[in-house]
Amino acid sequence: AAFPPSSSSREMDPLKNKQNSSFSTPVCVHNPHLDSLKDDILYHFSLGTETHDLPSMFGDVKFVCVGGSPWRMKAFIEYIAAELEMEDPKSEYPNICAGTDRYAMYKVGPVLSVSHGMGIPSIAIMLHELIKLLYHAQCKDVTIIRIGTSGGIGLEPGTVVVTKQSVDATFQPKFEQVILGKTVVRNTDLDQNLAEELLQCSKELGQFETVIGNTMCTLDFYEGQARLDGAFCSYSEKDKQDYLIKAREAGVCNIEMESSVFSAMCKLSGLRAAVVCVTLLDRLKGDQLMSSHEVLNSYQKRPQILVGCFIKKQLMAKAVTS
Amino acid sequence: AAFPPSSSSREMDPLKNKQNSSFSTPVCVHNPHLDSLKDDILYHFSLGTETHDLPSMFGDVKFVCVGGSPWRMKAFIEYIAAELEMEDPKSEYPNICAGTDRYAMYKVGPVLSVSHGMGIPSIAIMLHELIKLLYHAQCKDVTIIRIGTSGGIGLEPGTVVVTKQSVDATFQPKFEQVILGKTVVRNTDLDQNLAEELLQCSKELGQFETVIGNTMCTLDFYEGQARLDGAFCSYSEKDKQDYLIKAREAGVCNIEMESSVFSAMCKLSGLRAAVVCVTLLDRLKGDQLMSSHEVLNSYQKRPQILVGCFIKKQLMAKAVTS
Repeated sequence: AAFPPSSSSREMDPLKNKQNSSFSTPVCVHNPHLDSLKDDILYHFSLGTETHDLPSMFGDVKFVCVGGSPWRMKAFIEYIAAELEMEDPKSEYPNICAGTDRYAMYKVGPVLSVSHGMGIPSIAIMLHELIKLLYHAQCKDVTIIRIGTSGGIGLEPGTVVVTKQSVDATFQPKFEQVILGKTVVRNTDLDQNLAEELLQCSKELGQFETVIGNTMCTLDFYEGQARLDGAFCSYSEKDKQDYLIKAREAGVCNIEMESSVFSAMCKLSGLRAAVVCVTLLDRLKGDQLMSSHEVLNSYQKRPQILVGCFIKKQLMAKAVTS
Repeated sequence: AAFPPSSSSREMDPLKNKQNSSFSTPVCVHNPHLDSLKDDILYHFSLGTETHDLPSMFGDVKFVCVGGSPWRMKAFIEYIAAELEMEDPKSEYPNICAGTDRYAMYKVGPVLSVSHGMGIPSIAIMLHELIKLLYHAQCKDVTIIRIGTSGGIGLEPGTVVVTKQSVDATFQPKFEQVILGKTVVRNTDLDQNLAEELLQCSKELGQFETVIGNTMCTLDFYEGQARLDGAFCSYSEKDKQDYLIKAREAGVCNIEMESSVFSAMCKLSGLRAAVVCVTLLDRLKGDQLMSSHEVLNSYQKRPQILVGCFIKKQLMAKAVTS
């Protein structure tokens, strides 16, 4: 599944159609009720269409990076500002969502960095409001990448996994959304070209191992991921190993807690999406994070470095073509 | 379901058995693997059994209050410190989990205040580590109360709901936990005496309306709660009303996103548990939070005031009997 070296980067450039505005891709909402709202309050961002000029604040956004930890998303905006040579001389990156403690949001040039907390419900609230924000701001041709942490299966800790498909706890590529008490199944497809482009960036960087593989998304970190170190555990070490090996056989490289709803919602709204998570440990060998703070920190920077390289490349390609 | 005025408060005092230590209730874990861990790292708290003396840090905890927002949980510890006249003269309440941005934790005397983020997966990670923390610290006779916000159904905004049963999106009182890819159903019973005691506190306070009723716990804030203002909405205003009215007929007074797993995990670990959520709006009348910041803030203080009153009463009863 390697990036074909014969393809030109232009062919895979999501911004190439920007030249012809009729081909640019808007961010879609699927909600006829939104038009009748006088003011759309994005409550968990502490933003709104009446109180904020969203097109002028966000209209130029082309890349959105999301991750669980607010500290990490602040570190990412500082990193990307330096990479793009768009640093604030005072090094101040104000939290755009300073009016709430639910999420943190930072922006530098065309890059938006947003935290989403842990788990499907937490990221889903953020994504509903982010998609509406990008829609209200009339953003076009937006690429969104989740940069996160995960547990690996049979991979050296520190390996970065670019998700091919997000699968559930039974290894099926689907997300179940409950609507009015009934379950609706949604597709968790991600953009395969984008995944290949990210893999190619890692090859060019040559700093760490990156693979493309399936990512299992669970509703729970302990029992839901077959850990033996939660407050409750009713299965044996062998049961755990058997389950993780079955997952590995189904193509699962890593386990995290947000990719399924992220994939489903981004697909519905027409966002070009990828999931890039570093593995902090090999779950076949343990459950607890025994590595030092420094080692874990260096691992957590890898998705940022990879995505930083990708964004830089995209912006350079755009500068060349425009 | 009112508190019977003929019952004495002593009969319902959870601490009365403290007089006879053989009756004191420990915090239970159900995991035979834990004993073989040399160091138990509570990763999302940035605490551990080898790095921290948990019994001396937390051994005296009798009340744990949890809520989604870290700011609110800090405000709660400041409020309870003043109520219990245990204020720090410098008014400094350090975040015990300062080494991580996943959760915030504060302590004053026997009261611990912990944030849990939004949604079932986020609170479940916190509860696994909190239950292990209380177990390692050898805490006894612990009462745990979630103080949160919610959407009401047919209630005046600002009404406080003490949960009788936590029900799912089909109004069933159960929580489904996926373990090794298989679904296990868990009971969501809460302590009915504790709920009645909290209702009685509200009557004594006389500051706001409090009711006991069922709480619906969903995995999603928008489509999962029949909101018309998410990025996606495939149903009509009538479909929404029909669903919410059916919920009301099943005894549902309010909707939030954490009570089911909270109830299930606290029951499994022998914690006396309650859920106290204020309703920020009446979902039969709207979806967006249109009230002013000041009004919403005053509503959010109500569960804190109610639980503060309860804790004070319990500690006074304990002081009388010891």
